[in-house]
Amino acid sequence: LGMANDIKTLNIAVIPGDGIGKEVTPVAQQVLEKASEGVVNFNYTNFELGAERYLRDGAILPDDELEEIKKQDAILLGAVGDPRIKAGILERGLLLKLRFALDQYVNLRPTKLYKGVTSPLANPGDIDFVVVREGTEGLYCGAGGAVRVGTPNEVATEVSINTAYGVERVVRYAFELAMKRKKHVTLVHKKNVLVNAGDMWQRIVDKVGEEYPEVTHDYLHIDATTIFLVSNPSRFDVILTDNLFGDIITDEAGAVVGGVGYSASGCINATNEYPSMFEPIHGSAPDIAGKGIANPTAAVLSTAMLLRHFGYDEAAARIDAAVEADIEELGSTKRSTEQVGKDILARL
Amino acid sequence: LGMANDIKTLNIAVIPGDGIGKEVTPVAQQVLEKASEGVVNFNYTNFELGAERYLRDGAILPDDELEEIKKQDAILLGAVGDPRIKAGILERGLLLKLRFALDQYVNLRPTKLYKGVTSPLANPGDIDFVVVREGTEGLYCGAGGAVRVGTPNEVATEVSINTAYGVERVVRYAFELAMKRKKHVTLVHKKNVLVNAGDMWQRIVDKVGEEYPEVTHDYLHIDATTIFLVSNPSRFDVILTDNLFGDIITDEAGAVVGGVGYSASGCINATNEYPSMFEPIHGSAPDIAGKGIANPTAAVLSTAMLLRHFGYDEAAARIDAAVEADIEELGSTKRSTEQVGKDILARL
Ligand SMILES: CC(C)[C@H](C(=O)O)[C@@H](O)C(=O)O
Ligand SMILES: CC(C)[C@H](C(=O)O)[C@@H](O)C(=O)O
Repeated sequence: LGMANDIKTLNIAVIPGDGIGKEVTPVAQQVLEKASEGVVNFNYTNFELGAERYLRDGAILPDDELEEIKKQDAILLGAVGDPRIKAGILERGLLLKLRFALDQYVNLRPTKLYKGVTSPLANPGDIDFVVVREGTEGLYCGAGGAVRVGTPNEVATEVSINTAYGVERVVRYAFELAMKRKKHVTLVHKKNVLVNAGDMWQRIVDKVGEEYPEVTHDYLHIDATTIFLVSNPSRFDVILTDNLFGDIITDEAGAVVGGVGYSASGCINATNEYPSMFEPIHGSAPDIAGKGIANPTAAVLSTAMLLRHFGYDEAAARIDAAVEADIEELGSTKRSTEQVGKDILARL
Repeated sequence: LGMANDIKTLNIAVIPGDGIGKEVTPVAQQVLEKASEGVVNFNYTNFELGAERYLRDGAILPDDELEEIKKQDAILLGAVGDPRIKAGILERGLLLKLRFALDQYVNLRPTKLYKGVTSPLANPGDIDFVVVREGTEGLYCGAGGAVRVGTPNEVATEVSINTAYGVERVVRYAFELAMKRKKHVTLVHKKNVLVNAGDMWQRIVDKVGEEYPEVTHDYLHIDATTIFLVSNPSRFDVILTDNLFGDIITDEAGAVVGGVGYSASGCINATNEYPSMFEPIHGSAPDIAGKGIANPTAAVLSTAMLLRHFGYDEAAARIDAAVEADIEELGSTKRSTEQVGKDILARL
């Protein structure tokens, strides 16, 4: 009992969200609990946010709930999005609002081809890279507008806002990460067309790169990147890119390693001023929601990212190892969400 | 001799441009000549535009040359871009300036997996779709700017401008094209984040779609599209999208059908107010330029698109058939640019 008091307790906001988010999140919590027994305790607060809540009382992310969430140490999120609700309302009002309000400027997305998973590529090679996606700027700011909507004279704009402050901090994060990996950073942008933002990104990468002489860096246009992800994905170590390009290539990357069902992500506030958020990169998958067949692996892997974020590397490694072994042995068998959870738990 | 006078002559501006553009364009012209013998004549005017010219006299696309180009019936372009010149200068000053000044609002990019080509996908299936990319709006307008450049307070913006006028005409083109194909249009956007532009695109597709009851249409986010291009590319018939998303997915699509070396494109002014432009989608490939090993197939296929644009469907079909036979028989053998040209010519 005395011992137990020495164990730290982390407060976790749980937002299962919509569709399969509600099915995979409880499984992820079970795995997190078991893997961290005797190491760290968790105190969960559930937030009912997402489509059901919105349809019931019109609330998306009320201020008082956002304030409650800010007091937590981290967030576990399932998925957001529902076909009954117009595109953008929940995504911008809940998911992106969290990323922006909590200044989660690093959207970290590891991509790995696990043994036992069949890649759609004929010769995938060894795939193991991390995408460092900027999370609080670019075309995701919500800047822009429309006039004469619905008329033949309608004009709609979208504005990408990029700052040296916002770019430099995520660039530094990428170089630090590269130091712990294969020491290579690839900047992805479209600087031959988006010359203002692209030029700033390149200059900042060049400047910060000088402080990391051991790390090499190169540049690829976003269009060329989509080619290399298919033709030579092994060439990548750390991919550094903006909010929109990061969204696009992490989905392609997920496909290349056998489906986004294995891809976890962390929306990181690296200064720890606000809680970071951990989520699978897949969506709410309305087509399979409610059937108990969603693969909880990505959600489980996101709890390992949460543990690592707080320095519990061994507990995180236990989850990663259990998942790797599970995929290698059973990855190609059809299992229920619950069964995958049980199988992973049994290996811990 | 009297007969010859009945044959129409089309004036073609030839812009070989940079790198391998200079190597593949003459081959494409030879094939075009032979395939259209007795059907249509061509009168070529060469324009020396691109890196060499820029480095020599600073000119990118002088007004008087643009005026000359406007008087032509069509343009054959090789490739633009050179590593000695800062990214964006030639792309925006020459290639995009042509697309915008000549109001080439349909960027047409057929994607086909030819027999004899090895796809990087393990089970590519039957791939045959066309991307209809908007060519005169979106993030390619050059709107945006930067303040406090080079300081820690730098802010850089990029503005995407989208108009109902510009969107509706390309949407109509896509539905017309679908009528001649498998009658399915997929709108690709990111309407859950880019709500102003995305909502307008979707409304216009819905509205125009009502006029084409035989054509079905669906919607995919750009990120999901990059997954389907890898996991199920056969699902597509006509992909309709904006300027930036079209740039991105046509490169991924090119990779999936065995490399952009087989992908041609047309920058079409569908009202014929100004000349349309035909170009391979690959770039200037500085790494292999000057070696005589660039594959001219995409450039050759772009001449078939040119012929089809003017209604010379039979001559176009001759080129397509010669290329298909060439790829099926010799696609996997290493050949020089010249040799591929000879092999295709021999089949005409
Ligand atoms: C749901 C959507 C707003 C989100 C994004 O675009 O960031 C998702 O695609 C993701 O990648 O997390
Ligand atoms: C060279 C570049 C400006 C161009 C584009 O982005 O449109 C190219 O990538 C293309 O797809 O034709």
